[in-house]
Amino acid sequence: MSQNAILVINAGSSSIKFSLFAINEGEEQALELIYRGNMSGLGTHAHFVAKNAIGLKLLEEDLGTATHEAAFTRLLSWMEERDDGLTLYAVGHRVVHGGVTFTKPVEVTPEIFQQLEALGSLAPLHQPHNLAPIQVLDKLKGHLPQVACFDTAFHTTQTLTAQRFGIPREYTEQGIKRYGFHGLSYEYIAQKMPSVVGKLPEKVVVAHLGNGSSMCAIRNGKSVASTMGFTALDGLPMGTRTGAIDAGVILHFLNQGMDVKELTKLLYNRSGLLGVSGISNDMETLLASDSPHAKEAIDYFIYRIGCELGSMTSTINGIDALVFTAGIGEYASLIRAGVCEKAEWLGIKLNPEANAKHASCISTPDSRVSVWVIPTNEEKMIAQHTLRILKG
Amino acid sequence: MSQNAILVINAGSSSIKFSLFAINEGEEQALELIYRGNMSGLGTHAHFVAKNAIGLKLLEEDLGTATHEAAFTRLLSWMEERDDGLTLYAVGHRVVHGGVTFTKPVEVTPEIFQQLEALGSLAPLHQPHNLAPIQVLDKLKGHLPQVACFDTAFHTTQTLTAQRFGIPREYTEQGIKRYGFHGLSYEYIAQKMPSVVGKLPEKVVVAHLGNGSSMCAIRNGKSVASTMGFTALDGLPMGTRTGAIDAGVILHFLNQGMDVKELTKLLYNRSGLLGVSGISNDMETLLASDSPHAKEAIDYFIYRIGCELGSMTSTINGIDALVFTAGIGEYASLIRAGVCEKAEWLGIKLNPEANAKHASCISTPDSRVSVWVIPTNEEKMIAQHTLRILKG
Repeated sequence: MSQNAILVINAGSSSIKFSLFAINEGEEQALELIYRGNMSGLGTHAHFVAKNAIGLKLLEEDLGTATHEAAFTRLLSWMEERDDGLTLYAVGHRVVHGGVTFTKPVEVTPEIFQQLEALGSLAPLHQPHNLAPIQVLDKLKGHLPQVACFDTAFHTTQTLTAQRFGIPREYTEQGIKRYGFHGLSYEYIAQKMPSVVGKLPEKVVVAHLGNGSSMCAIRNGKSVASTMGFTALDGLPMGTRTGAIDAGVILHFLNQGMDVKELTKLLYNRSGLLGVSGISNDMETLLASDSPHAKEAIDYFIYRIGCELGSMTSTINGIDALVFTAGIGEYASLIRAGVCEKAEWLGIKLNPEANAKHASCISTPDSRVSVWVIPTNEEKMIAQHTLRILKG
Repeated sequence: MSQNAILVINAGSSSIKFSLFAINEGEEQALELIYRGNMSGLGTHAHFVAKNAIGLKLLEEDLGTATHEAAFTRLLSWMEERDDGLTLYAVGHRVVHGGVTFTKPVEVTPEIFQQLEALGSLAPLHQPHNLAPIQVLDKLKGHLPQVACFDTAFHTTQTLTAQRFGIPREYTEQGIKRYGFHGLSYEYIAQKMPSVVGKLPEKVVVAHLGNGSSMCAIRNGKSVASTMGFTALDGLPMGTRTGAIDAGVILHFLNQGMDVKELTKLLYNRSGLLGVSGISNDMETLLASDSPHAKEAIDYFIYRIGCELGSMTSTINGIDALVFTAGIGEYASLIRAGVCEKAEWLGIKLNPEANAKHASCISTPDSRVSVWVIPTNEEKMIAQHTLRILKG
């Protein structure tokens, strides 16, 4: 007897990440990760790697100059070759931008697809890459239901006051406002907290610290504010992105003759941890470095998290729990320690031993604010949404 | 016997504000405001108004199309005509930008003047206008000592971590960093607090809310962080300035074909309270309006002050006192009430009666953080600096 499975796709400009979840039918329809993988270097030197749920390699092969379509063809043929008794039931996609229209995941119809394409101008660097696989899969497997899950949807509970910028209101009405991102991650954390913490605390700030970093203020499970704005450039400094920056600096660069393309590259690709350190965008590399410039980048990262923690806390009138998640948040104990040390004024007391071993709860019992390390799982969130949308 | 006096000048693109302080010689060399005034509409329909220390009009006249130089000539002749026994001893100027070089006020020599001019590229909209009067006065009254007092100097105690942006370090080294402004106001408040509060609290956040608005975190009398950055565009929304905005919005406007001039005008002149309300840049007008759009602008202003209050508080690891100053801070009780209500989580308890009458202390006796209304006086700060520099 065959078991249904959901394929989760997160596609970028030259890579496709995928995960396959089996649906264990039963009262809870529990999802079980079977394998995950990555097809990178698409169009140039494509490389296909797949690993099982505990990280053992199932496949590694070069795909030459395979494009997105060729890569998908190979992925689907490999999945069929496995003959593992799993039937592909549906595909869930991570789509960065749902604009103001999409406040929750949606099954993609031709009409919906057109609406998603129209949102491309809001996220020109990401949205087209997120959508391309939907078209490719529709061509290859037209009968498969496909569901789009948005990074912005979780934040649609925010008030207009939290979403707006101080610009003329006609621009706000046109959609130039804060959408916030990493929503699938925050939603997963909010959903996971009761089982980890024992309950969902009323006032939570989550720090999603990875290659892209942002923070979110969550009250009673709903997003109230987040540090990313109209684009994924705002808020915390990231691997290569600047984070918040005085608009006057942008005007200065333009007045000095920098063009928009160069400026975009500067802000998205040459800044953040890489720019400040002059060494690397990788936190592990910086933490291992004894260069004072690496330390400057780390200090700046921690300082800015502290500022945004204060800001996020103000939007929910206090804080009961702080959660660290994503690559840096889950594994960089020195970053967590630095943030917690600077947040003593909030009533945070770190338990250094628990923090060193990346324990689940890393605050002391008498800490007024509890502090947690909770691994995020955006893929599982997407699989859940896909299942829920299709099975009700 | 003649008494010495100091003239304080704050010059903009088409206006010159002036104040005259008599030096009451004695142990404390106390400065006494004799008169103040404004010459506005320079170059087009110049108008000259002077009032005495209690606000009674001493003079009002049209100066036609008088330029800065003609206006100064008239000001100096009027001062002499008064025959009030006061001898002009020195002139103190408000200069927006001291760059990294000027960490305190300085007597202007030809060499210094050249250095100040070179800083013009850091504040092209303000610096040239601040410097023009120094040249005019040097031409008209070459013997008069002139002192430049900087809006940035008070903030030079900030760490590089607080000053930097997440951009490549070579730009930071070239001076693209947070300077902060309103420094003369913050310095005045820090100096005034012991006599108002009884002592200088260790951790203070000052909200300078006026036509330009910013906040400053002060620890033991020294600036630790402020919301304005490289330019006076960052941080809080202001009368017509946007305040903090996602750099991705700027890129979006540029990609939509907006040119730099239009963009500059949008961010500096069409945004902030004016842009959000679509009604006015004037807080008094907005507070008196029953339009929901006026309320949206007010709500946004209060919300953003709340966020920055959290952020500033994090930089000094807590807060003992919150101070409101400048036009809105001193007179808009509804704004103060809104900010304090959203800051209950910090331990702030407002005394509504004290707040309604703009009392000095507006928090309750059991408020964990004391809250104050302290009128600022940048002109007096400049006069004090000028006297100190020249008399040691």
